[in-house]
Amino acid sequence: MVHKDILILGAGRSSSTLIAYLLQKGGSRGWTITVGDISLAQATERITGFTNGEAIEFNIERKEESRRIIQAHRLVVSLLPAHLHPSAASICLEEGKHFLTASYVSDEMKGFDEQAKQKNLLFLNECGLDPGIDHMSGMQVIDKIKNQGGILTSFESFTGGLIAPDTDPQNPWRYKFTWNPRNVVMAGQGTAKYLQEGQYKFIPYQRVFTRTTPVVVPGLGDYEGYANRDSLKYLETYGLQGIKTMLRGTLRNKGFCSAWNILVQVGCCDDSYSMEGVGLMTHRDFLNSFLAYHPSNSIEEKICKVFNLSLTGEEINKLRWSGFFSDELVGLPKGTPAQVLEHILNKRWKLKQGDKDLIVMWHRFRFLKDDVQKEIQAHLIATGENEINTAMAKTVGLPLAIVTRLLLEGKIKARGVVIPVLKEIYDPVLEELQEFGIRLNEEEF
Amino acid sequence: MVHKDILILGAGRSSSTLIAYLLQKGGSRGWTITVGDISLAQATERITGFTNGEAIEFNIERKEESRRIIQAHRLVVSLLPAHLHPSAASICLEEGKHFLTASYVSDEMKGFDEQAKQKNLLFLNECGLDPGIDHMSGMQVIDKIKNQGGILTSFESFTGGLIAPDTDPQNPWRYKFTWNPRNVVMAGQGTAKYLQEGQYKFIPYQRVFTRTTPVVVPGLGDYEGYANRDSLKYLETYGLQGIKTMLRGTLRNKGFCSAWNILVQVGCCDDSYSMEGVGLMTHRDFLNSFLAYHPSNSIEEKICKVFNLSLTGEEINKLRWSGFFSDELVGLPKGTPAQVLEHILNKRWKLKQGDKDLIVMWHRFRFLKDDVQKEIQAHLIATGENEINTAMAKTVGLPLAIVTRLLLEGKIKARGVVIPVLKEIYDPVLEELQEFGIRLNEEEF
Repeated sequence: MVHKDILILGAGRSSSTLIAYLLQKGGSRGWTITVGDISLAQATERITGFTNGEAIEFNIERKEESRRIIQAHRLVVSLLPAHLHPSAASICLEEGKHFLTASYVSDEMKGFDEQAKQKNLLFLNECGLDPGIDHMSGMQVIDKIKNQGGILTSFESFTGGLIAPDTDPQNPWRYKFTWNPRNVVMAGQGTAKYLQEGQYKFIPYQRVFTRTTPVVVPGLGDYEGYANRDSLKYLETYGLQGIKTMLRGTLRNKGFCSAWNILVQVGCCDDSYSMEGVGLMTHRDFLNSFLAYHPSNSIEEKICKVFNLSLTGEEINKLRWSGFFSDELVGLPKGTPAQVLEHILNKRWKLKQGDKDLIVMWHRFRFLKDDVQKEIQAHLIATGENEINTAMAKTVGLPLAIVTRLLLEGKIKARGVVIPVLKEIYDPVLEELQEFGIRLNEEEF
Repeated sequence: MVHKDILILGAGRSSSTLIAYLLQKGGSRGWTITVGDISLAQATERITGFTNGEAIEFNIERKEESRRIIQAHRLVVSLLPAHLHPSAASICLEEGKHFLTASYVSDEMKGFDEQAKQKNLLFLNECGLDPGIDHMSGMQVIDKIKNQGGILTSFESFTGGLIAPDTDPQNPWRYKFTWNPRNVVMAGQGTAKYLQEGQYKFIPYQRVFTRTTPVVVPGLGDYEGYANRDSLKYLETYGLQGIKTMLRGTLRNKGFCSAWNILVQVGCCDDSYSMEGVGLMTHRDFLNSFLAYHPSNSIEEKICKVFNLSLTGEEINKLRWSGFFSDELVGLPKGTPAQVLEHILNKRWKLKQGDKDLIVMWHRFRFLKDDVQKEIQAHLIATGENEINTAMAKTVGLPLAIVTRLLLEGKIKARGVVIPVLKEIYDPVLEELQEFGIRLNEEEF
């Protein structure tokens, strides 16, 4: 029997803003909220101070117990690791519960569409930051352009989780780990697909950090975007069939990619084999194991020679700041190149007390209106409060939290497997995000 | 009941020399030889003209039938695709039959070692050209150096299947497909591991064709070698623990790698996804889909800019000769980049009537003798007779055929999972190969 309202699965770091929002908003609406996590302590921490929250131990591997818990709620918000969503979603389908996540739609999830519609259920995905706010803010502008009779010829969109200007001012990368470090190290693997001037374009991993798009955000600075895996799959979802250019990607501060590319090219990001001799390896040894032997040249010299760089240039400066040339022991007994790299990077890229992160999203729309070529550039910024209440947690959690509220209030009619490209979702979410200081700034050219 | 001698599984192109040898030698020894293939016609072709051969249909998927066939023979030579070897080997183990292949030892194969020894069976692998003759010729020199009191400090070994100087003289690659084209297109994927001056070295795919070793073969020409997957795994097998440099690789004509590297870098060799729009694609479109859009630069110009090359240089010349800049349709309805690339290459790289291939193997041994640094370079050459009786078929098939004969004559005592690094194998095989004009030429420095 249903006697509770919201079940939130997963109480990891990125859940804090989401849970706090729903506990607060739910308080005045009489909603009860259950937070389930493998760690009961973690779940308990999230509800402390609220009377309408309950913490429970939750393990999706224990099917029947999971089913009983889900049965008792009106809807499920899943922050579980992405590969566990289908297990939770299939229970929701059987038990007739709405299901909401911030993760990419998998093929398995897509397969639930027909049944979810039949059962009048919303299975909402990609409702975080990126994917999430990017879809919503992009679609709002796209729909506006279309409604005013414009014909879109190009849509480019880049989002990055960076650090605020006053955080770690000596850090030449302007970057720290604000989400899963392993995913940062592996970023760009696979092949990027996009559309440019009507041509299908494919970029393999070994080229992705060399083919960047320059981005200038007014009043903030110079950035660069590299292509994300598959921009083509959104052509239909966005209703952009026939568009000439469509590119989605990741934003970094200018100069990040040419330095990161060195690590990619030499093979440091490879997760496919265990390295020999990690236990005795220094940072310097690690890098050297990917460079050809030379009887007299230093590692720095060898890198400059291979990549045609200057010893006093920014790329070498970044690698030096990260300690790649130091004689410090790595400090792992074993590992793949990617694991060793993550371990070394984490020594300097872990958020410290007082560090603030910075989310930067940027879109460029090109369109024809009355036969005149026009352009809109739009950007959105969010700054973290500190190393715990990050902009990342806020921007990933709030969209999902807001839609959850709207759905329980009966304000969302969409059903089936959906991403937030619909007006009934993006309009109220983007409006409410402004209360949190998250707003899209548009400039037309 | 055993009433036949040799069962050869697989009658594909590389089997011709092997089967002919065994039929001939077996004739005077009263041996009967069965050739089994999924295609009975193919198997029949191989035994035509001999009275001691029988052709049968053989399908390893039909377990019990395969078992009955194997039961009736004294030993099995498998030329099946490598992934099928363990199925055949496990039947041989149960039925007490020797098992011989030219393929790399897989982990599964390695697992049969103990039981094969207990049952007094030889499970010989890597007994073709490369791996095969490279092990044998290398070990013969290594053992000689050791027996004369030398201490090896470095062993490098490269082998390539190329084309003869008088074949296709306009072909700037000096290369055609003489074995599985798909494997040529995918060559170098994964990570190469080797040892240089006591340091473990790792080369990812994106660097492997840029880190080549120059090789000069006296009287023949200039070559270059790129590293093969795992040179470290032979340290123990070769008895070379403590050596400072150990590198095995593939040989190509000088200049091949810098041109091939372009295809690797832009992503043409990727087999992980299906491309959009293959049906309407020209060769030129194919290459362009991997290059950034530019409003006015040609593909040739874009490549030269990315790779810092000259429009009149050898790399562009090779790509042009292969038709990559042509407006000819690819001619496939769909495909991965690797499949499309193979299809385009095959238009020029398929062996024509009268074409002769050329095997070149080269070893360099460095060693200390009486505290003096010495060096031996050794090379081996084999030329094909025509496009059917290739040097590749000869050098892959003869070592396996000779060992099969020696084993049936009781001249090989080794048992268990073995590769041909043992004197009782390499001495008689290398000696007999000389009768076929295949001989190692050594030069000491």
